[in-house]
Amino acid sequence: MGVAVVKRTAVIAGVGPLQGLGGALCLGAGQEGLHVVVAGRTLEKLNKVVAAITAAGGEATAMVCDVTEETQVVELIATAESIAPVHLAIFNAGNNMPGSFLEVEARHFEKCWKIACYGGFLFAREALRAMAARQSGCLLFTGASASMRGRPGYAAFTAAKGGLRNLAQSLAREFQPQGVHVGHVVIDGGIYGEKIEKLVPDWYAEQGEEGLIGLQGIVDAYMHLYRQPRNAWTHELDLRTHQESF
Amino acid sequence: MGVAVVKRTAVIAGVGPLQGLGGALCLGAGQEGLHVVVAGRTLEKLNKVVAAITAAGGEATAMVCDVTEETQVVELIATAESIAPVHLAIFNAGNNMPGSFLEVEARHFEKCWKIACYGGFLFAREALRAMAARQSGCLLFTGASASMRGRPGYAAFTAAKGGLRNLAQSLAREFQPQGVHVGHVVIDGGIYGEKIEKLVPDWYAEQGEEGLIGLQGIVDAYMHLYRQPRNAWTHELDLRTHQESF
Amino acid sequence: MGVAVVKRTAVIAGVGPLQGLGGALCLGAGQEGLHVVVAGRTLEKLNKVVAAITAAGGEATAMVCDVTEETQVVELIATAESIAPVHLAIFNAGNNMPGSFLEVEARHFEKCWKIACYGGFLFAREALRAMAARQSGCLLFTGASASMRGRPGYAAFTAAKGGLRNLAQSLAREFQPQGVHVGHVVIDGGIYGEKIEKLVPDWYAEQGEEGLIGLQGIVDAYMHLYRQPRNAWTHELDLRTHQESF
Amino acid sequence: MGVAVVKRTAVIAGVGPLQGLGGALCLGAGQEGLHVVVAGRTLEKLNKVVAAITAAGGEATAMVCDVTEETQVVELIATAESIAPVHLAIFNAGNNMPGSFLEVEARHFEKCWKIACYGGFLFAREALRAMAARQSGCLLFTGASASMRGRPGYAAFTAAKGGLRNLAQSLAREFQPQGVHVGHVVIDGGIYGEKIEKLVPDWYAEQGEEGLIGLQGIVDAYMHLYRQPRNAWTHELDLRTHQESF
Repeated sequence: MGVAVVKRTAVIAGVGPLQGLGGALCLGAGQEGLHVVVAGRTLEKLNKVVAAITAAGGEATAMVCDVTEETQVVELIATAESIAPVHLAIFNAGNNMPGSFLEVEARHFEKCWKIACYGGFLFAREALRAMAARQSGCLLFTGASASMRGRPGYAAFTAAKGGLRNLAQSLAREFQPQGVHVGHVVIDGGIYGEKIEKLVPDWYAEQGEEGLIGLQGIVDAYMHLYRQPRNAWTHELDLRTHQESF
Repeated sequence: MGVAVVKRTAVIAGVGPLQGLGGALCLGAGQEGLHVVVAGRTLEKLNKVVAAITAAGGEATAMVCDVTEETQVVELIATAESIAPVHLAIFNAGNNMPGSFLEVEARHFEKCWKIACYGGFLFAREALRAMAARQSGCLLFTGASASMRGRPGYAAFTAAKGGLRNLAQSLAREFQPQGVHVGHVVIDGGIYGEKIEKLVPDWYAEQGEEGLIGLQGIVDAYMHLYRQPRNAWTHELDLRTHQESF
Repeated sequence: MGVAVVKRTAVIAGVGPLQGLGGALCLGAGQEGLHVVVAGRTLEKLNKVVAAITAAGGEATAMVCDVTEETQVVELIATAESIAPVHLAIFNAGNNMPGSFLEVEARHFEKCWKIACYGGFLFAREALRAMAARQSGCLLFTGASASMRGRPGYAAFTAAKGGLRNLAQSLAREFQPQGVHVGHVVIDGGIYGEKIEKLVPDWYAEQGEEGLIGLQGIVDAYMHLYRQPRNAWTHELDLRTHQESF
Repeated sequence: MGVAVVKRTAVIAGVGPLQGLGGALCLGAGQEGLHVVVAGRTLEKLNKVVAAITAAGGEATAMVCDVTEETQVVELIATAESIAPVHLAIFNAGNNMPGSFLEVEARHFEKCWKIACYGGFLFAREALRAMAARQSGCLLFTGASASMRGRPGYAAFTAAKGGLRNLAQSLAREFQPQGVHVGHVVIDGGIYGEKIEKLVPDWYAEQGEEGLIGLQGIVDAYMHLYRQPRNAWTHELDLRTHQESF
């Protein structure tokens, strides 16, 4: 990157640990030469991601943001735009908590939606307000197995992710003709190195490296979408390990 | 029905005018011999539906209910169960308001979801708590074109309906093996006699009776699902006029 | 039916044993008051179906027909039309033979397609030539789990049924605006009383009556589609037992 | 590539003009360092593709092959394997001819399927016999808008492509756990520089470069799939111009 003026930013929301998907996407965006605005709820984690990008010769800014708070999301995109025009915006927030449907509490169902779908709406609206005015940019959403079909035992997550997927489709149809690429990446399975290890250590160990999706492959797919010319855009692709039944 | 003791109730939420879909579903359920608990926000409208059912020789109870309020939904199902076991529960609430995505207000996006998806969650949970314990019953959701794919200009509605569809799938997979039928009816187009006439009178007139879906056909489909034996259950079907392109 | 003149015929192709799906559909069509043209490859089996319809007070004609032979399909529809206008046409042919893909012989792959997809094309074209000219009628296709998604170990059947499903969609979009209803019924699982008992007796016994789809429920669904008014047509519905995971 | 021994081949079937998709995929595979076996029906066209790969420093072999002839497909893969193990196999054959369904001749319907679906079966079986034994390799199919849903006026093509898509899914589920990547690329629209110009020059001119999918973007997507590590495989992605409504 040298002394060249930074001309573009990436905003990535839903960033947690450096070794998680959000962190990996930030590093990938940094390698594309984008100034990365690293957004998540815990400043300490964000700072580690910023440090890793900087150590690799890139530029980054940490920004604490709760995607369920409209004012914070508005500020997030405004801050990114004040650094440089946002060319890549990735919405990666979302929490999955399985459980028997009859025991799902209303506030849990709502929270799950607030993070995964409502947050995606706020993020998309703000990013698109900037991008559509310039008729360029790329907005990507992280999907999951639950985005595609309703699974038993995952009612809250599957409802939130189904809503986000339909939202992404709607936005692709409204904004692609205006020059903004909208994509949805379906991550069909657990991710290696992710929080899964902490949540379900036994299952994680059982899957092993072969049964969990590799971060680099995921990041490569997002960046492939980002680099696509506007006469060959992908709206949706899936990603899974070779072992995954689907 | 004569002097026979009423043994079953139907609860139908999202009932408006008598000549709308909610009202028609109530009449259909009454003709099946079910005591119909007619639920909606406006007592005056509910009373007209109750009167029509009674006039046809059936039994019905009006109950004001805002499906976005947990306590009200809990009370709705409890009241129905106090009359007789709920054998049919239909969630028919949902509001569609098109508009450019960049102008969609956060509270509108949330409200749209609260009615169409969160309300569906509350209603389904309460109905299933009663039905699953008996290992019988039928829970049906009203879907729309927007349930199936994201349409430009309908971001809020399409996100809410996409969430509801995934929820319905998840519930079918969790509760059908427990003996409760879960169905999703995709109504692909405008309904003849519905509120559409008031909202978009010009479009309504242009479509004419031929271009709008007939209420009787819709009600017949719901009741067909309700009557299916448990060795031949339909989870999803679509309905449209012969003129509809899809 | 009495002495009334027969005014309508149903043509049902892919009829085998009386207790199979084809036979049951014929009986159902007979109960609708249609003169049933019972088509399949084995005259002996067809005659039993005709006898059952007649015994129930209906009218029927047996017609040997190999749906993969164009001239025979042309003759089938012409014969039915000579009796009375065809108002219901059901394509129910199809053979499923699982096996490792690497061992699938070319002639098997082709035969599977010839019966399930090419036969459907010939049947649909001839039926639609008659129906479209009158701007009325109902054309239904029997689908399977394999119609919806490719399953491992069922490459030939899944390819044939996937083709048939896309064909049915294409025809719905071309002919419904011309007044002909086109439907596709996805039978997701084994059928009770079907040939499955002979093919896989152990699996059949293991499933039991609860794990196999009931014939009456399937027939009711087809006849429900047949009776739908043209302002409320279903293109696709699925059918499975309450035990089926999907 | 220098003097290094060629270690891998790509076999690409359905290659026509150099400036078409088949030709472009061959050039892309050559740039990946693969020895490209260029397969199609017209030797003259194949030779031009081979010449272009060679001129770019790659290696290639032309091979006339009618994908609907089993012996020719067997020979095609055997020849490629005799050069070096096949690591990439792309099935790109398929002909689209729109027309009113009632006028579709049986031989046209069959021919359309033979090229697009049966050819895909033969090609896949032979490629997978080699790849599965090594537990590695990548098999890609070219899909189209018609693969996803049945379109009016394209019955033959949509039936063939629907069958191919289901086949691809079935193979992914059977062979990915065995180490072979199976992908399906949905090309949703006309391709710039393709045969479309000759077939429908007026429509082609009307679309312009902006309304037609760019070859480079398509090739990049195929090669992205080819390079994916086996812990992050994509089975399906779509490609369209920013102008395309979908």
